[in-house]
Amino acid sequence: MDAYVAPMNDIRFVLRELIDLHELAQLSDSEVLGDADLTDAILEQAARFAAEVLSPLDRVGDRQGARWTEHGVHTAPGFPEAYREFVAAAWNNIDMPAEYGGQDLPAVLCSAIHEMFVAANKSFCMCPDLASPAVEALAAAASEPLKTFYIPKLVSGEWTATMNMTEAQAGSDVGALRMRAESHPDGSYRLFGEKIFISYGDHDLTDNIVHLVLARIADAPAGSKGISLFLVPKYLPDGRRNEVQCTGIERKLGNHASPTCTLVYGAQGTGAFGWLIGKENKGLQSMFVMMNGVRFNAGLEGLAVAERAYQMAVTYARERIQGTLPDGGGESVPIIRHPDVRRMLMMMRSQIEAMRAVAYEIAAARHVAARHPDPAVRAERQAYVDLMIPMFKGWATETSTEIASTSIQVHGGAGYIEGRGVTQPFRDVRVTTIYEGTTSIQARDLVERKLMRDGGAALRAWMSQVDHCLQQLERTANTELTDIGIKLRTALDSLGRAANWALVTYRQRPLQVLGGSVPLIRLFGIVAGGWQMARAGLVAQEQLRQGRGNAPFLRAKLISACFYSSQVLPQATGLAEVAINGSQWVMAMEDAAL
Amino acid sequence: MDAYVAPMNDIRFVLRELIDLHELAQLSDSEVLGDADLTDAILEQAARFAAEVLSPLDRVGDRQGARWTEHGVHTAPGFPEAYREFVAAAWNNIDMPAEYGGQDLPAVLCSAIHEMFVAANKSFCMCPDLASPAVEALAAAASEPLKTFYIPKLVSGEWTATMNMTEAQAGSDVGALRMRAESHPDGSYRLFGEKIFISYGDHDLTDNIVHLVLARIADAPAGSKGISLFLVPKYLPDGRRNEVQCTGIERKLGNHASPTCTLVYGAQGTGAFGWLIGKENKGLQSMFVMMNGVRFNAGLEGLAVAERAYQMAVTYARERIQGTLPDGGGESVPIIRHPDVRRMLMMMRSQIEAMRAVAYEIAAARHVAARHPDPAVRAERQAYVDLMIPMFKGWATETSTEIASTSIQVHGGAGYIEGRGVTQPFRDVRVTTIYEGTTSIQARDLVERKLMRDGGAALRAWMSQVDHCLQQLERTANTELTDIGIKLRTALDSLGRAANWALVTYRQRPLQVLGGSVPLIRLFGIVAGGWQMARAGLVAQEQLRQGRGNAPFLRAKLISACFYSSQVLPQATGLAEVAINGSQWVMAMEDAAL
Repeated sequence: MDAYVAPMNDIRFVLRELIDLHELAQLSDSEVLGDADLTDAILEQAARFAAEVLSPLDRVGDRQGARWTEHGVHTAPGFPEAYREFVAAAWNNIDMPAEYGGQDLPAVLCSAIHEMFVAANKSFCMCPDLASPAVEALAAAASEPLKTFYIPKLVSGEWTATMNMTEAQAGSDVGALRMRAESHPDGSYRLFGEKIFISYGDHDLTDNIVHLVLARIADAPAGSKGISLFLVPKYLPDGRRNEVQCTGIERKLGNHASPTCTLVYGAQGTGAFGWLIGKENKGLQSMFVMMNGVRFNAGLEGLAVAERAYQMAVTYARERIQGTLPDGGGESVPIIRHPDVRRMLMMMRSQIEAMRAVAYEIAAARHVAARHPDPAVRAERQAYVDLMIPMFKGWATETSTEIASTSIQVHGGAGYIEGRGVTQPFRDVRVTTIYEGTTSIQARDLVERKLMRDGGAALRAWMSQVDHCLQQLERTANTELTDIGIKLRTALDSLGRAANWALVTYRQRPLQVLGGSVPLIRLFGIVAGGWQMARAGLVAQEQLRQGRGNAPFLRAKLISACFYSSQVLPQATGLAEVAINGSQWVMAMEDAAL
Repeated sequence: MDAYVAPMNDIRFVLRELIDLHELAQLSDSEVLGDADLTDAILEQAARFAAEVLSPLDRVGDRQGARWTEHGVHTAPGFPEAYREFVAAAWNNIDMPAEYGGQDLPAVLCSAIHEMFVAANKSFCMCPDLASPAVEALAAAASEPLKTFYIPKLVSGEWTATMNMTEAQAGSDVGALRMRAESHPDGSYRLFGEKIFISYGDHDLTDNIVHLVLARIADAPAGSKGISLFLVPKYLPDGRRNEVQCTGIERKLGNHASPTCTLVYGAQGTGAFGWLIGKENKGLQSMFVMMNGVRFNAGLEGLAVAERAYQMAVTYARERIQGTLPDGGGESVPIIRHPDVRRMLMMMRSQIEAMRAVAYEIAAARHVAARHPDPAVRAERQAYVDLMIPMFKGWATETSTEIASTSIQVHGGAGYIEGRGVTQPFRDVRVTTIYEGTTSIQARDLVERKLMRDGGAALRAWMSQVDHCLQQLERTANTELTDIGIKLRTALDSLGRAANWALVTYRQRPLQVLGGSVPLIRLFGIVAGGWQMARAGLVAQEQLRQGRGNAPFLRAKLISACFYSSQVLPQATGLAEVAINGSQWVMAMEDAAL
């Protein structure tokens, strides 16, 4: 497997040309964004860490995996050392609040850094990634003593955190969980029950682990309204072992180095000591605070693994000499010169570029939504973020799963062999469409919450942004750009049609609209990607015209935008038709006939 | 993992209603097709063998896999016994010529049986599946002594066969192979070199293995015109071990129970004893005789594994209770009632039905092409088969790969866990788009050989068959069927447009046409599937009208046809646009910029 090399040119292009860093830099604690040398230095350090420390352990982790023993989970060889280096370089707290000692770097920068780290070693990142939402939840709702004791340990990386939601009967439907919390006269709780699918629920990277656990207090209301959030440490403040045990880890398709634990609480009868975070029965609200972040990260993970898979495919396609071209005089050529291999590479690349631009732009919007002085601007940006995140999570993870499969295809027979590297992204990425809410859940969230609640206002606001870009495309004299504009216009119209249909149909026929919701989310993603690629094409063309910038990169960017618009956007019309008309057949068959 | 249950209702429907078995039964040695009770009995026996013997070993094979030792390869536990039962029941020679003791069952029946066996245990089938093309090659071109000695052993199943094509530097480009054959005064040859990716190149199922090996005789012309085919047994007729060794097996993404061997010939210096099959330097011609068969089978494998993955998804979706519906009064429901889960199940099912009908219909055409008394009919059907096979191989394997991924998605988190069953079809099916010619190779074959050589005549002939079906649809008073007709007409027009574009453009811009060839092959497959689903819808509607047949099955079939036409066919327009217009951007970027 080739070492991961961060795509610095494209990352810089998106950050500098598609996002108004200058404007963002005016916001509070965002000065770093105004200093191009500093941001570059940070990104380059991250790229180096990804390449030198994380990437070399990726295949070891896949091959050897985490290992369960009676006394605890052992991570893969090299992981404990890498974690120490990670924390020593303070990569673990780049997105944590400054008031607790974090670096509080703007979300756009964190997204770029996070993309690199996950691309280099997704399984590793799954551990430190959990600390930041935990700090967010604690900071928002925990008591002062809990904050004071636990947050600094999570910020320093001395301890890690986990999220305990899923139980065997409660997956997508968190409200069905049964874990029990008994209140104790001292104000603490004792927890009993079993959680499954807990990432890094046990490990040997740190001395202690802080579990955030959803559970029911006695006599709590049924369903999602009776769920509370608790902090349950592996080791209690006095050093005693708490009554929480990892009874096994899952054997999974991928992410082998990330232990997916079953955690049993209170098996010895005393119960695991826990402390309430926030109010009784308001646990899901605390979790929802974190939801945008974790869903955004899942989409970013998809993109990151797709980039890794793309790099492997390009490297192989350059090296592998096989077959002749129709006009090639009988000489064997590197397969990168075979049109269908090239089509696959371009399909991977153009969609990765589109996803990256969409991702960083959402991150920028989150930054504005959090820090802009004007509450109206904050509200508008938050509505935008809330709209975009289920789309991004669903579209980016589905697209990245396909991209990883395409990388196998480029490799041919070699792609099917384990240990050569390219099966790993294929296996690793496959979970991203499932965890943090399946694509179905994202699509339902988009329709029922993000569209229905504001009657489509946020979507229409964004569509007029796209329309603004379309007007720019239509004004240029460049036929490549005007052609992109024609295709984007058609696709945008399809999205408008499908979204309007969903809005007017949902109240009468909600099941039919949900039956069309995944095609809708995909259509939305494709158009969002097309919008960013069109913006990129405009910038590239303008810079080329002015003779500014890196001409080969800009020319490639323009071609990538043309490719995307002529290979990806044409799916939009069909997707709208499927959502609107095809959905009538989704529920037609009797259950028993399936 | 649930036991595989052969979808007998659908298999029977395709065989009886979509294929004119009565007409086929008139052909030589095809009487069995005229006897519905007999064909049913055969299919039911096959279904039972699949369910009772092959299916229970599938997961064992995945988990334990084949094992290499210095003394040879051991298959997974239970495989040797299953092979003995397979041979005892004579399932191994159903498609072999009667003159050598085979049962010579018509290809339509063999296809149905083969689908069941592969669905039950793909890795197992990969061994006996190799014998039939080997017998075909030997029967067509080997000397009488070779035929007399080897064919009966392969027909009885006492020995198995392998195909040795690939070398490290010669994958898709077989012409690049280097294996050396030295002629010996006694008329035999001595072979030297290394072959990779040899399925069941060594195993413990039989006492001997008959390797068919492509190699170069000294001074042979370069490239594909200098390749000869040899028979190289593991044990020589006098009982001595031949100089061919399995030096290792691959660790693969899937098909763990099928050993993928590296075979080294002549390492001790004497060379492996081999005998020429057919003429010197005409080895590829012998291989191409088998090509239609092995490519058809690869497509059928895709379909078979997709069916298995579908069955797992339906079972899980019935059992898993999770989440509420918008109009469901807050009660948790089995996920089969969630619209997006249902959409996924219907997408899997309708495409599987379409692929099955296309597959069996191609098999019927192969039967006619082989046995019809009129040479003109034989030639017409052979042209049709030659046209359809690359399409079917490419489309069915790509679609099945997606279906297996969808099955994981239906399972949610449980789908990502190894050992619960559904990761196996996902991993097993992934190779089908690669071996026996990647999808790129199929697409190139379609364009360069099947379309260009006859100027599109065979395609047009088939399109007028589809047009005939469209006229039937347009004549009905049933709005569901007329609506299917509208969608199929649009899709067929798209295919016509894209195929014409390929025909007129190829001579000037072959690279661009190849850059659009995979979208074209997919478009072709989608329309072929839509044609068969439309035919099925017509039959179902007519039988329902007459009150004949199994009404719930027929109603489900009609719904499946409606679903396919409104969810799959709408992709056609976009695919044509991608093939025709999108292809101009495929080669635009500089190699170095990728």
